[in-house]
Order: sequence, then structure tokens, then C-alpha cells
Amino acid sequence: MPLLSAPEPKSLNVIATELEADVVGDGSFEVSAVAHPVFAQHEATLALAMDKGSYALLGTTHAGAAIVSKGMEIDTARFKGGLIVSDRFRVALAKLTQTFSPPISFADGIHETAVIDPTAHVRDGASIGPLCVVGADAEIGPGAVLLSQVTVAAGSQVGGGSILHPGVRIGENCAIGQGCILHHNASIGADGFGFVTADEGSIERAQRTGEVTAFNYEILRINSLGNVIVGDGVEIGASSCIDRGTLGPTRISDGVKIDNLVQIGHNVAIGENTMIAGGVGIAGSVKIGDRVVIGGNVGIADHKNIGDDSIIAGMAGVISDVEPKSVYVGYPARPLKQTTALEMDKLRTGKALRDLRSLIQRVDRLENEAGERREQSGDVE
Amino acid sequence: MPLLSAPEPKSLNVIATELEADVVGDGSFEVSAVAHPVFAQHEATLALAMDKGSYALLGTTHAGAAIVSKGMEIDTARFKGGLIVSDRFRVALAKLTQTFSPPISFADGIHETAVIDPTAHVRDGASIGPLCVVGADAEIGPGAVLLSQVTVAAGSQVGGGSILHPGVRIGENCAIGQGCILHHNASIGADGFGFVTADEGSIERAQRTGEVTAFNYEILRINSLGNVIVGDGVEIGASSCIDRGTLGPTRISDGVKIDNLVQIGHNVAIGENTMIAGGVGIAGSVKIGDRVVIGGNVGIADHKNIGDDSIIAGMAGVISDVEPKSVYVGYPARPLKQTTALEMDKLRTGKALRDLRSLIQRVDRLENEAGERREQSGDVE
Amino acid sequence: MPLLSAPEPKSLNVIATELEADVVGDGSFEVSAVAHPVFAQHEATLALAMDKGSYALLGTTHAGAAIVSKGMEIDTARFKGGLIVSDRFRVALAKLTQTFSPPISFADGIHETAVIDPTAHVRDGASIGPLCVVGADAEIGPGAVLLSQVTVAAGSQVGGGSILHPGVRIGENCAIGQGCILHHNASIGADGFGFVTADEGSIERAQRTGEVTAFNYEILRINSLGNVIVGDGVEIGASSCIDRGTLGPTRISDGVKIDNLVQIGHNVAIGENTMIAGGVGIAGSVKIGDRVVIGGNVGIADHKNIGDDSIIAGMAGVISDVEPKSVYVGYPARPLKQTTALEMDKLRTGKALRDLRSLIQRVDRLENEAGERREQSGDVE
Repeated sequence: MPLLSAPEPKSLNVIATELEADVVGDGSFEVSAVAHPVFAQHEATLALAMDKGSYALLGTTHAGAAIVSKGMEIDTARFKGGLIVSDRFRVALAKLTQTFSPPISFADGIHETAVIDPTAHVRDGASIGPLCVVGADAEIGPGAVLLSQVTVAAGSQVGGGSILHPGVRIGENCAIGQGCILHHNASIGADGFGFVTADEGSIERAQRTGEVTAFNYEILRINSLGNVIVGDGVEIGASSCIDRGTLGPTRISDGVKIDNLVQIGHNVAIGENTMIAGGVGIAGSVKIGDRVVIGGNVGIADHKNIGDDSIIAGMAGVISDVEPKSVYVGYPARPLKQTTALEMDKLRTGKALRDLRSLIQRVDRLENEAGERREQSGDVE
Repeated sequence: MPLLSAPEPKSLNVIATELEADVVGDGSFEVSAVAHPVFAQHEATLALAMDKGSYALLGTTHAGAAIVSKGMEIDTARFKGGLIVSDRFRVALAKLTQTFSPPISFADGIHETAVIDPTAHVRDGASIGPLCVVGADAEIGPGAVLLSQVTVAAGSQVGGGSILHPGVRIGENCAIGQGCILHHNASIGADGFGFVTADEGSIERAQRTGEVTAFNYEILRINSLGNVIVGDGVEIGASSCIDRGTLGPTRISDGVKIDNLVQIGHNVAIGENTMIAGGVGIAGSVKIGDRVVIGGNVGIADHKNIGDDSIIAGMAGVISDVEPKSVYVGYPARPLKQTTALEMDKLRTGKALRDLRSLIQRVDRLENEAGERREQSGDVE
Repeated sequence: MPLLSAPEPKSLNVIATELEADVVGDGSFEVSAVAHPVFAQHEATLALAMDKGSYALLGTTHAGAAIVSKGMEIDTARFKGGLIVSDRFRVALAKLTQTFSPPISFADGIHETAVIDPTAHVRDGASIGPLCVVGADAEIGPGAVLLSQVTVAAGSQVGGGSILHPGVRIGENCAIGQGCILHHNASIGADGFGFVTADEGSIERAQRTGEVTAFNYEILRINSLGNVIVGDGVEIGASSCIDRGTLGPTRISDGVKIDNLVQIGHNVAIGENTMIAGGVGIAGSVKIGDRVVIGGNVGIADHKNIGDDSIIAGMAGVISDVEPKSVYVGYPARPLKQTTALEMDKLRTGKALRDLRSLIQRVDRLENEAGERREQSGDVE
């Protein structure tokens, strides 16, 4: 999570202990920031140089200390402080960026320009920024932060410690868990996209007969009576949209991470720790398991089931169920193994084309010989 | 449309008459809500149980009445009220969710924090919520609702009874019809994406010659002097964008339904009752007919014509015109029938590969025999 | 750029000089607007009729003058003013729409409802509209316009003459250059989408082994310590999102044009004058060169390099580097030339299928003959 207050300086020794890493040189040196070697702005900075590219740039850094990968050549002399040596790049990156995030800028309490309904409950330590709107009977949990120009409509709840960035819209009667982060202009609880025709519509007819012989002259709206329930520790990207359910909730479980510009339709249920990259579109009533990973720009058709721990590669179009613990690719999305088989088929086709050309020559030859033979036999007869 | 006030209780008899359905048991029982059996919160609720899944959950509902499909086994004894029996699931779903929508929460009149230009016209019964901005000469029709933090820029009109959810942006000089619903952060009337190079640009050169030998060192902007005109009864999803035209309007006809995160470019015209699912991108100057259905994540290239009553399957990429009353799929999008032919071709290719393998063996045999024969004739000669 | 004040009337002679075009008839006639012939509202309008479609509509226009293409048949009698004749349609369109844009409506200075931190710097001639928020130490350059309900968070800069439309969100410590246009609800500086697992995650395992045998039970967040730096003359479409970098900036160079609903991930760098159409998704750490053109709905996988002056066709999915000055199409995106080769392969396959069928007949015949021959030899022996 982003820091809500300025990071404390820490010694290299303390940091190394937290990262289960080693220190070379002066471990008492204190830093209050981490940065790429090029972007370090002062000496009390730990330069992150665990890959070769950034390691090569250590020579010109303003940082007074660095963290490098085990096995990299090290010259401690040029640093005022020491070096941290770690063999766990990704974990170090996560922990250090969390420890040394610049804090988010906001004031405590309720800004005078925020419009809070008198029946709303704003809990202790919650912060509501300028020009936010909090509706009737809404509840803002302890330590939650609404940065500015946020909407929390009537009857909705925002859990403790959650951060809502400017322009976030929470529709009526929705629930956001604790420790969530919602980015710029995310939309929770817009109505689902549900329309029907009184009689058989063009799509149903085409699915049944292959022909468009029914016409959607009259469209009936299915109103959305459900809501959206978002668990704890969920992150929702900028301008992403999660629609409310028709009769029950659309559910996003604990720990789900959603990137920007993602569309999640009505009645969808998403399991714990599932990660969804940017631009993904998930149609209505899709059920997604736990720990699924969905790549960028994927589309998933309505009512499909996506198994636990499955991986759907970027740009895939899913129009059938996805098995657990499997990797799906392409459009229509197929298991990677099948796709490999299809690719092999293509290679075989290429080889077959060459085979065919030589085969034609062989048959030409055989026919010529047979013709000669016929002539010879003709002579004989 | 969402309800603007709380639903009145209705007896099962009255509901059944409206739905052209039958009542079993006590038809005088009154309900004030509909819900999925699991989510019914009080007895005065009609449980919607017209499919097998929800029917099976009727045993534990708190609802005092239910609507079920004709032919389903019914035990009226367990309900305080009676049952409604219908054979038109979708129509019942649409009508009941409309009748029993929870009302939207808003106050009558103009909120004290809204910023309304003195030259704007706010008609009788219109409601303008907190922190909205209405520009010079703009007009808000009778009974229209701007929920909160909405923008209606100078010179724009919002028709009577339309609902604009928080964060909706209407650019200058645009027109929204009557009875429309615009969801969170929808954008109407941003500038079109129009740029040219003074001389032939890289794309034109590549289209003409197949090579990139012209370079876009200088880009000229084509300003958007047109606007956006949206008809009556139109729905526009969260974070969807409709750009203004270059010299004339971008037009969305009556009854069009647009889902979330849809992009509609400058100069586009869309006919009546067309439905567009989430994530669709429609490039500039596309003409779309009446009652077209466009699936999720479809892309349509600029200047294409999409015929009336056509259906474009989700994930398709349209780079040529689409015939009326046809079904298009895939990328590049082709009529479903052609695609079926292409799939047949693939099957034929698979069969041909097997044919080829056996043919090679047959030719091998023929050559062996011919060789033997040659040897034999050699003996003879 | 949109005009910030009403256009001055100009004579046809002056306009023709600016466009390097000719005048037929009364060149002293003044116009104050340009329009499509059908949408001209008064006589002091120059009708744009340089293509055949709009030229054919000149008969009914209210405009008092017109610009037509060289070689088109002209009847000056019906116009009160004269005609401008040009052979550079696109340049005329760009220059005329710029000259005669209707001005944007806004008031000078700082609106009383805007919330400006006392430490923020608002330069001379900047305009800050109703209900905007400008954070601590932020700087709004001379002549910049924040229309309404815009956010410029703490520590961010907006360059002189830039226009931020309603709902634009600039996160903390970001920089927008001079003369930029940001449309409705664009998001600059949301956090990057960076998560890792402490040990090998499901994707890394699957990439290494082809099997999902590692499970993402614990996810660590990589915080975004970097920012977004946007150059001069950049345009960013409605609801587009540019995420901040992890340790350094995400960079958008001068002159870049980005359409609506585009996602640009953390650490991305985009070169000068690159144009990106609607719905494109660019994953983290992608490097894009100068003057690249990216069509609608394209996806680009993380860490890829896109060469200068390359063109990526709409709907393409890029999963490998793109060569400079090349055209890429399809999924996975390949050079157009290769794709043409693949299409040729398909044609060859079709021909081969026909070849195969005739070859089977020829082998049938050969086998029959060989059989007869064997029988004959059998007779002989």
C-alpha cells in the first residue's frame, strides 16, 4: 500500500535484516529513500541496482548506498555508506518500494467543501478530501482516505484503511472492504448491461437457425437490483468499471488486483488473489476462480467458468470454460498444449506442401515409365 | 429505467395481470420488492425463481411469494402468499426489475454547492445534485436528474427525465435526448482524434507502396467543430466516450444501448435500437444501421458501413463493410457462413494431410514395383 | 489547439493566401465560420466542399462562400461571396478548423469554488474553473486552463497554455508540458500495476515448465515511486490512463497524440510525434520510438521495443519487438511482408489440395495399371 505518512530513515543493517540480505561496508548508514541510480536525488538514498542495466549506472549516482545482486562485482569505496547484497530481486523491490514510498498528501478530517449527508457515518481517523460527496447512510471506515472529488453514494460502505483516489465513483448500496486501493475515476456499481426483447431477438434466432430473421424493434431493460461487494486488500485500476448484479451481488474476493480500463459485468464472481491486467473485458455472469492470472486485453464471454490457478494469455478471447491449472491462449482461447499441436499441424502442412511437390514429380515419372511400358507392351502385343 | 421514487406495494393478482401470468394460492398477498431467493430480505418480497438454479434455492428464502416457470413443481404451502406462474422468463425479469427497482437517492431542486451559470435554463422538476457544473446557455429538461459532480458544459441540452450519474461529462453544444441514462464518468463531446501531415504521411505512403518512406515530422490538428447529438431512450455505460464530429454531429439514434468503456469516434452515426457491448472501439466516420448487435471488445475500422440488423460477434475486427441481416465473426471479420467454409477448408486440409501420408506410401510401393519391373525387363532385354 | 477566444472574421483573400490557394469571385467577402455545407448556419460561413459528397450538397447551403477542390465544376453565381479553390484538402481542413474553432467557454482567473492549496503557484493568465482542486506546491503555468472539476495533485506541474477538460486527474509529482490538451476524465499518474510473488509464481513456472504447479497464495505489491512526465504539444484522449513509473518516470515525448481509452503502463517511454488510436493497451516498460503510428485496439506486451516510424495495424497483438520503418499486422503481430507470405502459403495450400485430389486419381490409375500388369505378368509366369 502507498504510505500515508513520510517514511522513517532506516540503517542498512535494519533493512538487510528485513530483506534477509547481507551488508558490505558501513551498515550504520541511514537512508530515507530508494531510487533508480539515475534518479537518486540526495545521499540518504539507497540506489536499486540489482539488474545489470541499473548496476552499470551506479558510477554516476547521487545515492550514498546501493542494493545489488549477489555475485555482482562490488566496489564499496565509492559509496559513503555500505552496500546491501541480496539474491531476491523481486521481493527486495516490493519491500523497499513499500518502505520508502513517498507519502500521499492529504489533510486529516473532513474538508469543508465535502458534502456529507447528515445520516452518513464517518469513522475515527477517516479523511474526506475536498469536493467529495458521501450519501445518506453511507459509512466511511476508520482511517479510510477519500482524496478529492470522490463519490460514495447512499447506503455504501468503504472499509477501514482503504484509499479512494480522485474521481472514484461508488454507486448506491455497494461495499468496499478494508485496505483497498481504488484509482482515478474507477466506477463501482454502475447498472449492468441487461436488455431483452419481448419475443425471440435477433441473436437468439441467429444462434438457433444461423439466419437473422427476428428484429429487435422493442428492447426491454432489465434493471439492476443487486450491488457490488468488494473484499479486503483489493486494488482497482483507473477508469475500471465493475457493474452491479441483477438480483444479487457482483463479487470481488479478497486480494484481487485489477489493472486500468478493465470491464467487469453484472453478476460476475472473482476468487481470491486473481490478477487481471489492463483492458480486459469480462461479460456478465462469468465465474472466475482463485489465483487466476488474466493477461492484457483478454475478452471473456458471458456465463463462462474460469478454473482456479488458470492463466489466460494476453489478447486471448475466451468463449468456452477454462480448466483449472491450465494455460489458455489465442482466439478462440485453447489450452496451450492444443495450440502447440495446432502449430505443429501448421508446420506439418508446410512440410506436406513440399512433400506434395516432390510426390507430383515422382508420379509424373511413374506415369511416364508406365506410358513407355504400355508402348513397349503395345509393341509386344 | 431506474425508479426515481420508492416502489408501491402490489398484490400478486395485479402483478400477474401485468405479466399475463397465472396465480396459484393467495393472490391478494402484497409485495414491495423482488429478489433472488437467497437475497430476499423480508417477507413482502417476490422471489424470482424461474430457472432451475434459483428454483432449487426457494426452500430457504425469506420471501413470502415467488414467481416460477410454468411446468415447475410447486408447493404453495411453504409460502405465506401465493405463487405467480409464467412462461415468459425474460419479459417477467425485465418488468419486475423495473417495477421494484430500489429508487435512486437524490434531493429535489438545485443543491447549494452546484455551480449553475446564470444564463442556464433548469426546467421544472429537474434535480441538480451537489458539486455539479452547468454552463452558460445550457438547458436541463423537466424531471432530469444530475446526480453529483456532473458537468454539462456551455450550450448543451439534457432532455426531460434523463439521469446523469456522478462524473458524467457533457462537452459544449451537445444534445442529450429524453429518458436517457448516462453512467459514471461517461464522456460526451470530447474532441475527435483527427490529425494529418502536410504532405503524404507514413500510413498513406505505406498503403500506396508497401514501404514506410514518408515520416510524420509535422502533424496538423483537425479541430472538431461539430457536436454530439444523442436521441431519446439512449443508455451510455460507465467511462464510455462519444467524440464530437469534425464539421457536423456524431449521431446516436433513439433507443441505442451502449455498455461500459466503449469508444465511439468522430462523425459516427448509429441507428435506432442498436446495442453495443463493453470495450467496443468504433473508429471515425463509421455508419451503423438500426438494430445492429455488436459483441464485446469488437473493433470497427474507420469509414465502414454496418448494415441494419447485422450481428457482429464478440472480439471480431471489422475492416470491411458488413451486410444487413448477417452474422460476422473473427478477424478480419467475415460472414459466419464463409467462416464455416474456411473451417471446413481446415478440416479438409487435415484430411488431406492424412491422404498425403497414405499416398506417399502408395507411390513408394509403385516405385518399388516399377523398379522391380525395370530390373525384370532388364533381365529380359 | 481549440481557440480560447472567438475567431476574427477574415476575407477570402486573406484565407486563400494563408492556404496558398486561389480565389474565384469576390475575395473581399468576409467569413467568421467554416462548416459542412449542410450545417452552415449563416451567410458569413465558408462551406467546406472539397470532396464530391459535400460538393454535391452546396446547392442548399446557407453559407455565403465555399472552398472547393481544384478541378471541380464551379458556379460562383449562387454565392454572395466568392470561392476558394485549393488542391490541398487535408491541410486546408486542418488550418480552417483551427482558424474558425468556436472558442472554449471559461472565465478568467480562479473560480471561487476551486480549492487551491495556499502553497500552489498559479501563474499569470491561468484560469482555474469551478470545483477544481490544486494541491500543495503544484504549479499551473501561464495561460493554462483547468475547465472544471479537474484535479492537479500535490507537487505536479501543468505547462503554459495547456487545456485540462473536466474530470482530468493529475496524480502527485507529475509534469504536463506546454500546449497540451487533456480530455474528459483522463488519468495521469495512477500507480503502476506491479505485483510479485515471494517465490516463483504461477506464470514464471508455466513459462519455464509449461505447467501450472506454483500458486499465487501471497502477492507482494511493488509501489510506484516514479512519476509521469509529459512533453509539449501532447494530446491525451478521454478516459485514457498513463501510469507512473516504478523508480523513474513514465515518459511521453513532445507532440505525441493519444486517443480515448488508451492504457499506458508503468515505465513506458514514447518518442516524439507518435500517434496512438483508441482502445490501445501498452503494458509496462515498453519503449516506443518516434513517429510510430499505432492503430485502434492494438495490444503490446511488456518490455517490447517498437522502432521509429513503424506502423502497427489496428487490432494487432504485439508480442515481439517491432522493426523501425516497418508495417506489422495481426496476432501475433508480424511484418506485413511475412504476413503476405503466409497468405500466399494459404493460397498454395488451397492449390495443393486441388493438386492432391488429382494426384490421388493419377495414383489410383497407376495402381490399377500396375495391378493389371501384375496380373498379366502373373499370366506370363
